[in-house]
Amino acid sequence: MPLGDNTWGKSAIRLSKVHRGGASHDFSDLTVSVRLEGEVTEAHIAGDNSMVLPTDTMRNTVYGLAHRHLGRDLEGFAATLCGHFLESAGVTTATVSIAERLWRRVTPTGFHGGGSESRLARVTRGDRTSTQAGVEGLVLLKTTGSAFTGFPRDRFTTLPEATDRLLATSVTAEWLYSTVPADTTAVWSRARQTLVDHFFADRSASMQHQGYQMGEAVLAEVPEIAEITLHLPNQHHLPFDVTRFNVEDTGTVFHPVTEPYGDIRLTVTRNLR
Amino acid sequence: MPLGDNTWGKSAIRLSKVHRGGASHDFSDLTVSVRLEGEVTEAHIAGDNSMVLPTDTMRNTVYGLAHRHLGRDLEGFAATLCGHFLESAGVTTATVSIAERLWRRVTPTGFHGGGSESRLARVTRGDRTSTQAGVEGLVLLKTTGSAFTGFPRDRFTTLPEATDRLLATSVTAEWLYSTVPADTTAVWSRARQTLVDHFFADRSASMQHQGYQMGEAVLAEVPEIAEITLHLPNQHHLPFDVTRFNVEDTGTVFHPVTEPYGDIRLTVTRNLR
Amino acid sequence: MPLGDNTWGKSAIRLSKVHRGGASHDFSDLTVSVRLEGEVTEAHIAGDNSMVLPTDTMRNTVYGLAHRHLGRDLEGFAATLCGHFLESAGVTTATVSIAERLWRRVTPTGFHGGGSESRLARVTRGDRTSTQAGVEGLVLLKTTGSAFTGFPRDRFTTLPEATDRLLATSVTAEWLYSTVPADTTAVWSRARQTLVDHFFADRSASMQHQGYQMGEAVLAEVPEIAEITLHLPNQHHLPFDVTRFNVEDTGTVFHPVTEPYGDIRLTVTRNLR
Amino acid sequence: MPLGDNTWGKSAIRLSKVHRGGASHDFSDLTVSVRLEGEVTEAHIAGDNSMVLPTDTMRNTVYGLAHRHLGRDLEGFAATLCGHFLESAGVTTATVSIAERLWRRVTPTGFHGGGSESRLARVTRGDRTSTQAGVEGLVLLKTTGSAFTGFPRDRFTTLPEATDRLLATSVTAEWLYSTVPADTTAVWSRARQTLVDHFFADRSASMQHQGYQMGEAVLAEVPEIAEITLHLPNQHHLPFDVTRFNVEDTGTVFHPVTEPYGDIRLTVTRNLR
Repeated sequence: MPLGDNTWGKSAIRLSKVHRGGASHDFSDLTVSVRLEGEVTEAHIAGDNSMVLPTDTMRNTVYGLAHRHLGRDLEGFAATLCGHFLESAGVTTATVSIAERLWRRVTPTGFHGGGSESRLARVTRGDRTSTQAGVEGLVLLKTTGSAFTGFPRDRFTTLPEATDRLLATSVTAEWLYSTVPADTTAVWSRARQTLVDHFFADRSASMQHQGYQMGEAVLAEVPEIAEITLHLPNQHHLPFDVTRFNVEDTGTVFHPVTEPYGDIRLTVTRNLR
Repeated sequence: MPLGDNTWGKSAIRLSKVHRGGASHDFSDLTVSVRLEGEVTEAHIAGDNSMVLPTDTMRNTVYGLAHRHLGRDLEGFAATLCGHFLESAGVTTATVSIAERLWRRVTPTGFHGGGSESRLARVTRGDRTSTQAGVEGLVLLKTTGSAFTGFPRDRFTTLPEATDRLLATSVTAEWLYSTVPADTTAVWSRARQTLVDHFFADRSASMQHQGYQMGEAVLAEVPEIAEITLHLPNQHHLPFDVTRFNVEDTGTVFHPVTEPYGDIRLTVTRNLR
Repeated sequence: MPLGDNTWGKSAIRLSKVHRGGASHDFSDLTVSVRLEGEVTEAHIAGDNSMVLPTDTMRNTVYGLAHRHLGRDLEGFAATLCGHFLESAGVTTATVSIAERLWRRVTPTGFHGGGSESRLARVTRGDRTSTQAGVEGLVLLKTTGSAFTGFPRDRFTTLPEATDRLLATSVTAEWLYSTVPADTTAVWSRARQTLVDHFFADRSASMQHQGYQMGEAVLAEVPEIAEITLHLPNQHHLPFDVTRFNVEDTGTVFHPVTEPYGDIRLTVTRNLR
Repeated sequence: MPLGDNTWGKSAIRLSKVHRGGASHDFSDLTVSVRLEGEVTEAHIAGDNSMVLPTDTMRNTVYGLAHRHLGRDLEGFAATLCGHFLESAGVTTATVSIAERLWRRVTPTGFHGGGSESRLARVTRGDRTSTQAGVEGLVLLKTTGSAFTGFPRDRFTTLPEATDRLLATSVTAEWLYSTVPADTTAVWSRARQTLVDHFFADRSASMQHQGYQMGEAVLAEVPEIAEITLHLPNQHHLPFDVTRFNVEDTGTVFHPVTEPYGDIRLTVTRNLR
């Protein structure tokens, strides 16, 4: 049977890059897909892969070229990638699509991500009584001011010590009111702002340390809050090793992974139970 | 066998409310869940429903009480709902949880929603050549300035004419460059801002009419763009009829529905093909 | 500016139908989308809606025609819908797409849905010790054998009594072992099968009643289980009123809704705490 | 401020394992989460990580111990993991939760996954006429009978040649009828079954080769079909290198990744256009 239209490629390549330079950083968070067309009829019909650039190589190429070529001009980076893939034997057309998830700068090295942020309220009445408030989907990222060192090592440890790493999370916080404030909206805004301010301002030795400082600050700021529980998934941005491609590792390109994630949960309270 | 802990309730009740008053509107977008505990052992063991407040009634109640009681104080509204449910025979504890999705005001009656907004770029090289850019996940809502009247009616028509309705969408736009601009980032920002400005400023007789005006404005603003394609899902906010509960309908409470959605797609171009 | 390609339609129209006839039922679970092309240039440019069939009418039409015309032949139903829409003034092309989610029949009136079913295991050791197992994403539906009557009514009640309704849920069950069985896989299969058998075989007066019978049966069947907790979201299939279209209501066509859902949770235990 | 309850762990660790032995294979597809409690107050308050087992180590441990210890007894594997983590200094309680996504065996080395499989139909009438059918969400996996060798290598290539690899995809297929069959349901079942049979029976040199054979077989089997388009995302299961932990690599444990994926699309047609 004749082979009709066909393409091959790699989709959902996740890549982040910190654009350092001076005190203020830029941050790019991309999802890239590559799609090729070419002389691959024999690959389909006869299993001859000699013209089939592996999709795994496409992925490596995106990371490998991002160090030097990825700036703010997405179309320029996409065109560079297209040009590269067209040099492969048998490739006749290349399409590169990029979606850049937008982050809003809050501090010179701190960013507020998209996502659907929600204010939470939870009230129980009857045999039990409580009033809680909180925030969900508060996506925060900083490009400096976080470390993770001095941890125990065993035979399964491969993680290197990091004295300055990128830290990202989607904050869920819920707090319990000992006294329900008169203006719940104003108090909610104050607590949320305190979380944001301390995520960006406080240097941390771990996500646990970061979270404790955030929780402690909320209790210090809002006397009506008796305790606060934080859920801080550590949304890892992993360095992608490009030195094996003879590319200089500029320490700026990362692979953001959705799964697995570090799962950090803690409560800061006025009184130990 | 003994029955252990048990609760019943309604989750994922979606509700939106426009807080009118003067030239500037507020907008609330809530997901409410209700959870009850009570004297329902016989319901589980013997199928006796005399103490089981239906979860459908819980939902109706949330809409019914929102007209008068829902303001900015979520905890207050949740407490009002708890108090109401505790009046039902056999209910011993009520918990109401609310998540308010945050919208950011852009104009007195225009709002920018959360969601993950992305900048898009798509480049093809080889046997075909093109450069496209766009935006995805640009969530916009306005509380006035949109109508839908004068449409054809047949035996399946139940939709009333609307001279002033709430309009919400998640814009996906892709445009084709005839000339790739030198500063793709600046041009992208200009095109995106034009879409936002015209969604809020232009009165529309339908989503199609809204989209045409947005697309026409982008072509007028950015000479490098040859054509623009818009996908504008109409994210309906339906009035919830509370008059059957003897509640005064203030015209402010809506039921936002995810499925189905009006699916509007159009291209505005400089030259007819 | 010239208007280019454009379409309008309704997407994600959810519809289910029970095909009764004899002791055995068939069940269809569809997501329909309608897409029209036609003489709507003036609608885009000038806001003239006289040729714009409302997407809300498309939705009503799908439900209205499903009573008589929807059988197993999806292409036939889609063609009937296309023919109908082409009768509207100004419509030149109609496309109807249907995705039928597949359910597997287990009993003459019982069905097992797709979804991603998982076996669960949870083990805690150290200061606390427990071994739990369970199942998640076990999607079950029966077309008869469930009722909901005799519930309390107040001013917010609109739900009619139902002596024979369609019942659907996605079972999550977790049980605690007092003794960890030697063959955890065999015991897991036995517990899961007991849940399935009793969902289909036991008539129920409510989801709570259904769940209690399922939990009690598991405890009776598996002596190693000390208690079982069930989460049974009531995935409502609502009758869609077509009598207002002068269509005979055959009681077979439903609107499956994702939000909101009845949220039923209960524990059955060997010993009251 | 006092620190209250706290835990740390790794969630969403994805792992698959082929249980070889004789002609018939078993297949496990797990999502594991680890949660620890221990003497980490100083980590939160003072940033002292000496008692904080990294969550990255937890992940490595799950893969490292799966080679020898993961069989059908999930609770047993979870208990082994708990025992291991309790040996770390300062860990007082360990909880391991496992969700095993269920696959149904179809052949000795072929499996049908969960997911929501749908039958598709698409009909266009008016200025254009066509009738299409298809399937979506048909999740298939085989543990042998697939290779990928002989592909071009460049400086970005790291993929090793694979003469026998695990192959998994979620098939989307759409076909165009030249003649609409009288019994669309029967023909649909025949086409779908042909796809399944040939995925499992035909050895393939690539996903493209696999897809071509599947498409060709459908055209051979169903004369009413003019052409078929297949979308075959390559859902990679990557070998996880455990030799760096001094664990013997049994070639049976994999890391299933969601992103990125190989994106293979092709059409097989009766007549070249």
